Amino acid sequence: MGAVAPVSQNQPFDNRAGALSPPDCAVRPPGGQRPRFNGWETWQVTDRLVVVGADAAGMTAASQARRRLGPDKLSIVAFDRGGHSSYSACGIPYWIAGDVASRDDLVVRTPEVFRADYDIDVRLHHEVTGIDLSRREVTVRYRGQETVEPFDKLMYAAGATPVVPQWARTAALGVFGVQTLDDGDAVHEWLDRRPAPQRAVVVGGGYVGVEMAEALVRRGLEVTVLEKAKEPMSTVDPDMGALVREAMAGLGIEVRTGAEVIGLGEEDGRVSSVFTSSESFRADLLILGLGVRPNTSIAQAAGFELGDSGGIVVDSAMRVAGLDGVWAAGDCVESLHRVTGKKAYIPLGTHANKQGRVAGITIAGGDASFPGVIGTAVTKVCDLEVARTGLREAEAAAANFDFFTVTAESTSRAGYFPGSATLTVKLIAERGSGKLLGAQIVGKSESAKRIDALAVALWNGMTVDDMLSLDLGYAPPFAPVWDPILVAARKAAEQML
Amino acid sequence: MGAVAPVSQNQPFDNRAGALSPPDCAVRPPGGQRPRFNGWETWQVTDRLVVVGADAAGMTAASQARRRLGPDKLSIVAFDRGGHSSYSACGIPYWIAGDVASRDDLVVRTPEVFRADYDIDVRLHHEVTGIDLSRREVTVRYRGQETVEPFDKLMYAAGATPVVPQWARTAALGVFGVQTLDDGDAVHEWLDRRPAPQRAVVVGGGYVGVEMAEALVRRGLEVTVLEKAKEPMSTVDPDMGALVREAMAGLGIEVRTGAEVIGLGEEDGRVSSVFTSSESFRADLLILGLGVRPNTSIAQAAGFELGDSGGIVVDSAMRVAGLDGVWAAGDCVESLHRVTGKKAYIPLGTHANKQGRVAGITIAGGDASFPGVIGTAVTKVCDLEVARTGLREAEAAAANFDFFTVTAESTSRAGYFPGSATLTVKLIAERGSGKLLGAQIVGKSESAKRIDALAVALWNGMTVDDMLSLDLGYAPPFAPVWDPILVAARKAAEQML
Repeated sequence: MGAVAPVSQNQPFDNRAGALSPPDCAVRPPGGQRPRFNGWETWQVTDRLVVVGADAAGMTAASQARRRLGPDKLSIVAFDRGGHSSYSACGIPYWIAGDVASRDDLVVRTPEVFRADYDIDVRLHHEVTGIDLSRREVTVRYRGQETVEPFDKLMYAAGATPVVPQWARTAALGVFGVQTLDDGDAVHEWLDRRPAPQRAVVVGGGYVGVEMAEALVRRGLEVTVLEKAKEPMSTVDPDMGALVREAMAGLGIEVRTGAEVIGLGEEDGRVSSVFTSSESFRADLLILGLGVRPNTSIAQAAGFELGDSGGIVVDSAMRVAGLDGVWAAGDCVESLHRVTGKKAYIPLGTHANKQGRVAGITIAGGDASFPGVIGTAVTKVCDLEVARTGLREAEAAAANFDFFTVTAESTSRAGYFPGSATLTVKLIAERGSGKLLGAQIVGKSESAKRIDALAVALWNGMTVDDMLSLDLGYAPPFAPVWDPILVAARKAAEQML
Repeated sequence: MGAVAPVSQNQPFDNRAGALSPPDCAVRPPGGQRPRFNGWETWQVTDRLVVVGADAAGMTAASQARRRLGPDKLSIVAFDRGGHSSYSACGIPYWIAGDVASRDDLVVRTPEVFRADYDIDVRLHHEVTGIDLSRREVTVRYRGQETVEPFDKLMYAAGATPVVPQWARTAALGVFGVQTLDDGDAVHEWLDRRPAPQRAVVVGGGYVGVEMAEALVRRGLEVTVLEKAKEPMSTVDPDMGALVREAMAGLGIEVRTGAEVIGLGEEDGRVSSVFTSSESFRADLLILGLGVRPNTSIAQAAGFELGDSGGIVVDSAMRVAGLDGVWAAGDCVESLHRVTGKKAYIPLGTHANKQGRVAGITIAGGDASFPGVIGTAVTKVCDLEVARTGLREAEAAAANFDFFTVTAESTSRAGYFPGSATLTVKLIAERGSGKLLGAQIVGKSESAKRIDALAVALWNGMTVDDMLSLDLGYAPPFAPVWDPILVAARKAAEQML
């Protein structure tokens, strides 16, 4: 990993370093192997960084700060209320499906690695319950005990919490979110019960809902997805969502749209059914895929500013607005949406990592900025790939753009080449200027990542007319001679004539 | 297809229209079905467009002009010396390999379709042998007879001719280019001879050479590729070319680099071997994959200006420099390379189509421009995908850029996701500014088309620092959380610190 400045040893013991002595749960290096920096107790620590949340944003920030500042300049401790550090929550549905063999495969870096390679003290099962900005300390609960931990710099990366509607707040067993590895463990255990659950209901037809529905079908369950909107995958326009619904039906998933859940039934302390106002669905496993909200309760209590989106307000260096020496990043912050120019809450691992990197650099006194997001996302349903970037129609309307759309069918390869599959590209562009506002792709294999070229075009403010001259890669196994993106751009440009 | 203006009938017969009467080879509409515009003999033709070359550039221009101008405004005749119109030459290796069942699959539009749907008179086996710009006429040879055909507007799209070195100019059978469908037919026939050819030598390790080598191996031949340069696929840097060489070796192709062919041996009127200065290779089939040159002989004789690249000099509307009412496009013209700012000769179907479209619009009096190329190209060798955009190292050096490179290994999917494969992204960026100058990708499945996002970044003049904030699509089946492009951009940005 990155270079770290050499550590001068035998420095005077710093008072605050006392607080860094390893807690019970901290993982010591394997016997005989000393920490790379010879133990943090002996450093001349000038600054202490406390990280709240040891996942993507927090640990990327911590590692990045460490790459730039040796342990004589900065001590770093990260608290997480969960049992894992730096893992891929996005991989949980694939772990449930069996594509990913083990929970451990989803862990990017363990606390041991952070300790050995970065000299970062990661303390799991430690929940930060309060922040006192004036005293520069956080309160941490571990095994029922609260302690106070001082900081010079604070990195708030507490992530998001799943939306749990009132009707789902039950003691009944069999109701699961899909947010943490612990959630994944719980679903796995429930699926392994005997008699095994046979009917699952997934509430919410977004990314997590659709991915979990597929995973459960592949595990042999009958699955119903209940979605409030007109089509599943409401992150794309309904016309594209209809293609997703077809693919789900093809997998044998029952999709009910316009279906708002209002309650659940229980038997013997376990979930047994789910109700809408008009129907009841038997369920012995219930998955909540209703999205997430920024986890900001203690931040808000400490006086962090929250935006209209509910996320923490940060500047482009990921500093919390108006607070000195406090950073935030990841699923708890809002970001600039570069197309609308307004703040938006788009929790995604890829943003968390980039924001964490920027925070880490600026924590270390360097210069970096996170310029915002444009709402790119991809997923797949069986072999149907779904991708989006920028604004979908409803978002463009809400942002008061005067726009038009084109939808163009094309193929993934030259039409005559084996394996060529239909794909649909939809463009949303500003009327008059032709400026791209958003794009969506739905298609079989080799479709989704084509969104990246559109995302880069959107990022750079290209018009559909500019786009149709783009020099994209062409060879029969990879595209028709008019790339699907160019076909759509051409159609849009012609519509403007 | 596009809207065409209604045709007024019973107009006075135009003199020049006489020349449009269908020649022997012209395809009449099926009996009982009248041409869509009721026969070109009866139009009030105000302008006659002659198209030289009935492939991508020429026929795209012709169709585009027709979409905008009804047959009462423009009559269109296209001459081609070959036996096919509008076909995918890029598909020939895949047809030889058997991926594409039939030659007809490679034909995009037949003369019948052009006649019926576009009222374009396509005359195959008609070779334009001379252009007289002052008399506004071309000389056309058909079945040994020369006739003179008048034009008001001329679209020159004669394409390219394969490079055939002196040693390959032989009457011996078994020596083939891979440029036209007729070439493809000839190779097929040669492969079907009994006894069947067993040893093939491919001279030239570029796109066509590599694709043909794979096709012939798959047809059961022993194949040797002889390439003058240090590595095959010299369109990418040697370090990336070395990966291509490995993939070729894995397929059982013998690759000899630094091998310049100087002669060939013949037996019984057939090729029997190929020589370099030090070695001889037995061959009963020889493929020439030495690239192409712009087919400009008659254009040059007529006074068209040729650039240093050998291609015809055109403006961004695809008008031939200094000539009135004359357009050129496709493999016979040079293009602005947007990275160097200089003219370059990059014959590719994708450019030919775009340029043809622009020419067709401007021929019809519309406004369009072709803003240039950046050298994007993709191909595959077995399951190894190879992609490039912009300048490779040697080109950046030749263009006097002060540049640095980074090469980053990453994976096509999240590391834990099944089917995740290694891919290598190389970036070439300007020292100081960090401006992207070029990029290359080599990797297994799901690699090559990732070049498009880099191509769009390059097109827009992005720096590596800008690029590392790009909002690209992320989900475990499609990318690691740090997309391979971002990993490379980050590495480049860090190298600039």
